[in-house]
Amino acid sequence: MSKQRRLSRIFAKDGKSITLALDGYYFSTKTDGIDNTLRQLPSLVEQGLDCALVTYGMLKNFKDELNAVPIVLRVDGTVNIFDNTVPDTAQVFSVEDALKVGAEGVVCMTFPGAFNEEKTHNLAMRLAQAADAWNLPLIVESLPYGYPVTSDDSNNPVVIAAAARAAVELGADIIKTRFSGSAEDRMIVEASGVPVLALGGPKTGIDGYFTFVHHCMQMGAKGVAVGRNITQDPHPAKVVAGLNAIIHQGATPQDAYSLYMAK
Amino acid sequence: MSKQRRLSRIFAKDGKSITLALDGYYFSTKTDGIDNTLRQLPSLVEQGLDCALVTYGMLKNFKDELNAVPIVLRVDGTVNIFDNTVPDTAQVFSVEDALKVGAEGVVCMTFPGAFNEEKTHNLAMRLAQAADAWNLPLIVESLPYGYPVTSDDSNNPVVIAAAARAAVELGADIIKTRFSGSAEDRMIVEASGVPVLALGGPKTGIDGYFTFVHHCMQMGAKGVAVGRNITQDPHPAKVVAGLNAIIHQGATPQDAYSLYMAK
Amino acid sequence: MSKQRRLSRIFAKDGKSITLALDGYYFSTKTDGIDNTLRQLPSLVEQGLDCALVTYGMLKNFKDELNAVPIVLRVDGTVNIFDNTVPDTAQVFSVEDALKVGAEGVVCMTFPGAFNEEKTHNLAMRLAQAADAWNLPLIVESLPYGYPVTSDDSNNPVVIAAAARAAVELGADIIKTRFSGSAEDRMIVEASGVPVLALGGPKTGIDGYFTFVHHCMQMGAKGVAVGRNITQDPHPAKVVAGLNAIIHQGATPQDAYSLYMAK
Amino acid sequence: MSKQRRLSRIFAKDGKSITLALDGYYFSTKTDGIDNTLRQLPSLVEQGLDCALVTYGMLKNFKDELNAVPIVLRVDGTVNIFDNTVPDTAQVFSVEDALKVGAEGVVCMTFPGAFNEEKTHNLAMRLAQAADAWNLPLIVESLPYGYPVTSDDSNNPVVIAAAARAAVELGADIIKTRFSGSAEDRMIVEASGVPVLALGGPKTGIDGYFTFVHHCMQMGAKGVAVGRNITQDPHPAKVVAGLNAIIHQGATPQDAYSLYMAK
Amino acid sequence: MSKQRRLSRIFAKDGKSITLALDGYYFSTKTDGIDNTLRQLPSLVEQGLDCALVTYGMLKNFKDELNAVPIVLRVDGTVNIFDNTVPDTAQVFSVEDALKVGAEGVVCMTFPGAFNEEKTHNLAMRLAQAADAWNLPLIVESLPYGYPVTSDDSNNPVVIAAAARAAVELGADIIKTRFSGSAEDRMIVEASGVPVLALGGPKTGIDGYFTFVHHCMQMGAKGVAVGRNITQDPHPAKVVAGLNAIIHQGATPQDAYSLYMAK
Repeated sequence: MSKQRRLSRIFAKDGKSITLALDGYYFSTKTDGIDNTLRQLPSLVEQGLDCALVTYGMLKNFKDELNAVPIVLRVDGTVNIFDNTVPDTAQVFSVEDALKVGAEGVVCMTFPGAFNEEKTHNLAMRLAQAADAWNLPLIVESLPYGYPVTSDDSNNPVVIAAAARAAVELGADIIKTRFSGSAEDRMIVEASGVPVLALGGPKTGIDGYFTFVHHCMQMGAKGVAVGRNITQDPHPAKVVAGLNAIIHQGATPQDAYSLYMAK
Repeated sequence: MSKQRRLSRIFAKDGKSITLALDGYYFSTKTDGIDNTLRQLPSLVEQGLDCALVTYGMLKNFKDELNAVPIVLRVDGTVNIFDNTVPDTAQVFSVEDALKVGAEGVVCMTFPGAFNEEKTHNLAMRLAQAADAWNLPLIVESLPYGYPVTSDDSNNPVVIAAAARAAVELGADIIKTRFSGSAEDRMIVEASGVPVLALGGPKTGIDGYFTFVHHCMQMGAKGVAVGRNITQDPHPAKVVAGLNAIIHQGATPQDAYSLYMAK
Repeated sequence: MSKQRRLSRIFAKDGKSITLALDGYYFSTKTDGIDNTLRQLPSLVEQGLDCALVTYGMLKNFKDELNAVPIVLRVDGTVNIFDNTVPDTAQVFSVEDALKVGAEGVVCMTFPGAFNEEKTHNLAMRLAQAADAWNLPLIVESLPYGYPVTSDDSNNPVVIAAAARAAVELGADIIKTRFSGSAEDRMIVEASGVPVLALGGPKTGIDGYFTFVHHCMQMGAKGVAVGRNITQDPHPAKVVAGLNAIIHQGATPQDAYSLYMAK
Repeated sequence: MSKQRRLSRIFAKDGKSITLALDGYYFSTKTDGIDNTLRQLPSLVEQGLDCALVTYGMLKNFKDELNAVPIVLRVDGTVNIFDNTVPDTAQVFSVEDALKVGAEGVVCMTFPGAFNEEKTHNLAMRLAQAADAWNLPLIVESLPYGYPVTSDDSNNPVVIAAAARAAVELGADIIKTRFSGSAEDRMIVEASGVPVLALGGPKTGIDGYFTFVHHCMQMGAKGVAVGRNITQDPHPAKVVAGLNAIIHQGATPQDAYSLYMAK
Repeated sequence: MSKQRRLSRIFAKDGKSITLALDGYYFSTKTDGIDNTLRQLPSLVEQGLDCALVTYGMLKNFKDELNAVPIVLRVDGTVNIFDNTVPDTAQVFSVEDALKVGAEGVVCMTFPGAFNEEKTHNLAMRLAQAADAWNLPLIVESLPYGYPVTSDDSNNPVVIAAAARAAVELGADIIKTRFSGSAEDRMIVEASGVPVLALGGPKTGIDGYFTFVHHCMQMGAKGVAVGRNITQDPHPAKVVAGLNAIIHQGATPQDAYSLYMAK
């Protein structure tokens, strides 16, 4: 048996994925809209949502809603929650915990170049070994110098690519990382050699986000791991519908935007 | 089997609880009245006390008195006992120890934003996992920036709510936290999604305390976890009688105060 | 089975104990007289000695002499032996080691308020749990702010009482601590709730020491844990005879002094 | 059974080895050419390549290419990847992991004299013991004061020899280290007492590198562990052909250079 | 079964021992002559050598030579090898490793009063317990304030004696320590209560060394643990012959010197 069975639940048959990040509570106090989105999960799945990144607490308190979608368990959490420049992460749960709750994979962060690089790399290393032993895919969110974009370097495709590859060499099966928006983003995908999900994107309206996602797919991304662009949008299900058009059906950003505005 | 069986011993049938905190010896040298209250436990139970938070030492030295009431074992203790601004807590006992002594649950603190956030979160994380494995409810006392109110932030319902939710996401089954007294306290209950017990309250007389408890219940609290307002009161059993009226019978603070003053 | 069997070897039938502390090598270089006293153990037992606190090394190198008396194994030792203001203690041996060598109990120190409070409390916590699991009594020597009296606080009965109770709450079965000589020392015994052995005493001659011990017994102590007042006295067996009179027979300090001076 | 079986796959029958270091991703972001070289491995083996040092990630993502050559698993990785003066290494994988993936040995670094000497020595010690228990050869890359040459001392054969011997005393079966280019390099080989592979070499063209390798063999080295001189050369297979001539056939640097330039 | 069987291989039938310290590679880069001496071991044994302190690496690379003599495994090594004032030692091997390689005992250092006292004492404590469990003698080299003589205190017999006794109390079976050359050295032997081997000695020629060894034996030492005075002497076997005369046959320093000069 291999990890393929579980990977086929995170990614659709076309090898692409719209993954919803609901795990913000472990890193930030800016969590508006997450509980609201959790309650609408079935309609998001209807619009094409493939997978959700969730916390352990949600699995205890939103059981029924989460049954509707394949889940990946966030296994690290910040230990400085009121300061979210570089989250100081610690391992919260294990691969075995993920198996117990029926998750299809686990996700953790690494921060190459940040003050806590060693701690995050050690965490990822240990998880990679356990994930391989249990045939559970590991998503590593490898963010150079920390969580937000704090310098040219932390948004430089060359640096992002090096950070992604380091995570792959430690055993990551999937990379979740930022894209800069430039044509050099292709390097990130090439360096990784494993599927890459794009996070983040501009805060300039849903049309800008659709344009960004289209760019990421052109660069070779296998989809998105999207948080606030869904949870803080007034119409989460419509954002998913738009993403579905771009990611699974090859639509243009304009088509996606029309879909979003329709009805 | 689930945690429900044990939760039904901490909370009464109406889902509410008057929980007496006798565990002050692990955090403070201001412990007047605790031993005296311990000796009166049977009459407190008679007046409606539901549960007691106790130390390991008490279970060795006050065995008979404690048989009268469901107990939750305090499993962390301070390691700087003569300085109680931010207790520097360490794990003292385990979920397994709690099972051995017949406790219905365990309780620990976390201090989001404090110097020892990482240590307390790691402690809570590990306890949450063990508590889930053994079906033992975990109460987390999640106090932003430390034990006492030291700034506007540490008493701000938005911040208290974020701290409570962080504990829930780590696996807390019950939250014990402070209420500010304002109408925004409802956020604390909403963010938690699990039962919340209110601690503390004004030091301006028993009538002021009853008014505070009534407010907390209005905000959605499931009861109180009360220490010095009982142990340092000249009439502990009467305080419990007043709380019983407010919490289990929907009485007004005035009714409770009349009960306290009666006889 | 309970700890009672082993407690009855540390304390005489009247519940009181003359315990000789021979474990100074783990904390200090002022060890004159210890080896000499070890060689006279049988005659001390003859005079009423109940128990001895010993090191692991002594059990290897003074086997025969130690067979004559119930022993309690010192399980912590200092790691800064040439500086004995606040011993920086570390766990040397375990409860299991004590069982192997046939000890009736184990003894360790805690230093509430000192720089290494956390380390000593963690040590005592772990020992308490092991001691409970194996039914072996644990003596905790709980000394506020460190080994010697360095301030008013470290010799204040209120503070000593708080330190003693903290150790009891962690699981201590017996407290060994200092007495200030004032009538407030009764608080130490009351706060503890478990048997208390008095250490130390004035360096102003054996008559002064007997007066101190008599005071401690009046305050509720269950005996003494005495080191240099025996090992550095020219007549160790006679000191024991005097203590026996005060502790087990209710004699006055004057009677004890007469016994000491006799023959 | 002994380690001989596995050593015979790392070294050719003449006891010498051309080992290709593809493990740069764990220490540096200067990794140009590694993926490209990986894809050409079969033709390198054809030209005489004996062994490759690889990462865990490569074994997941370049399975087919790596089947062609005996491999040694790099088990430590840097945790400060954007600063490669002294890599701050941590153990990433274990001897057991190496056995699972079919490696013939493991390789790690030590940095005697560097800030992290203790950490690297502890890592090597533990690996040496596991490697002996499993009969898997351990290559230690023992580099005084760190990865690059930063002072006369770090390139002094006396110092390099002491560093190499320290690793041997900890249990290394093979030493990988730098050679200074002087006749004193013989000391490195003599102090080691186990096979030594030379790393690095001048950046002054392939002919300079061949001259350096010839020198190392004269000094008693058993071969090379070569990275960028192959991966960043436009003709990796031809470099191997030249090394094969020098190392396995006793050719002069000039012969090797002619081979490299041929066709 | 006891440790006696193995002690009888470290000490001759007269209870005395000429022990050769070949373990310098773990503490120092001043290792001239060690490999050369290793190759002459059989002739040293012929002259009366009783035992050798060796490293793990030597047991792999000098197997045949070491078969000739009972060995004690050095189990700690420095982690700051280029700075040997106070070696910062760490545990390298275990009692179990010593059993695997057929050693008769293990040896480690402690540095009472040095910056790393705690670390070294913890190391010795754990070893003592394992050594007792396996019936393997433990030699502790207890050197106050560090490896070299750096102050009056580090060469003061009172201080050396306290350091030695501390190691004995932790469980050492044999003490290896320095002697000051004065008549007070007798205190070291008396405080220890277990066999003491003298290390070091003057660098003023072999006759001075023989005089020193004779002094140590007069003070009650049970022999020597000698390194450079043998390994850096041009005639190692003759030094052993001289030591044999003094230690096992009660000869004078002059007799020993004549033996050394003979032939």
